[in-house]
Amino acid sequence: MLDEAVRALAQGKNFAVLTTLLPSGQPQSQVMWVHADDDDVLINTELHRQKFHNIEHDPRATVTIVDAANPYHYAEVRGRVTEVVRGEAARRHIDELSEKYLGHPYQNAIQSERVILKITPERQRTQ
Amino acid sequence: MLDEAVRALAQGKNFAVLTTLLPSGQPQSQVMWVHADDDDVLINTELHRQKFHNIEHDPRATVTIVDAANPYHYAEVRGRVTEVVRGEAARRHIDELSEKYLGHPYQNAIQSERVILKITPERQRTQ
Repeated sequence: MLDEAVRALAQGKNFAVLTTLLPSGQPQSQVMWVHADDDDVLINTELHRQKFHNIEHDPRATVTIVDAANPYHYAEVRGRVTEVVRGEAARRHIDELSEKYLGHPYQNAIQSERVILKITPERQRTQ
Repeated sequence: MLDEAVRALAQGKNFAVLTTLLPSGQPQSQVMWVHADDDDVLINTELHRQKFHNIEHDPRATVTIVDAANPYHYAEVRGRVTEVVRGEAARRHIDELSEKYLGHPYQNAIQSERVILKITPERQRTQ
């Protein structure tokens, strides 16, 4: 289960830095939209992205979610991608994220296929 | 050398997410103050912190610096810690960072010793 304070940050209109591991082991980080269900941090990406190749190679990921109103308040979730959701559910989910952050459905071109990465926490903290 | 756009983000009043690698290889991330000189991203921490133990074990680090005015504008610097500055220079540097972010010298207790991590880029990008 996600801690309530972590879930609140992930469900709010806050940005996350997703870190995955390149095949070399060097961390790769990106600023991303984020959401959460009861158990997992949810990140939406596309199949052809390096970050997706990274988690296929090593499912470990760390997500830092920063309170947009106060950068001294943030959550760090260390865990791994335990499920990848493809198809219509992932397509709908990027529309939901776009509604949260931009107020309208997703309008960018989809180059390959949207996927939801479900990141299950092994350690989580807020400060 | 740091790219000019990366240096501008690091020298501005913007927050960074520093990612280092735990001995297990799992990424550890924290929101940090940040600065830069011509060549390197500069992070100030203390000797007893896990992130310092991490970079002693594996010097690779990735820093994501997010424009406080626009989270869609950020820099990612992948590199490694090539120098650790200790002593009076590191103590002065945390005062300078505190002045930048808070407008006054550093007032928190110092538990061990301040150190500057100089992170030299191997790959850097802004978007």
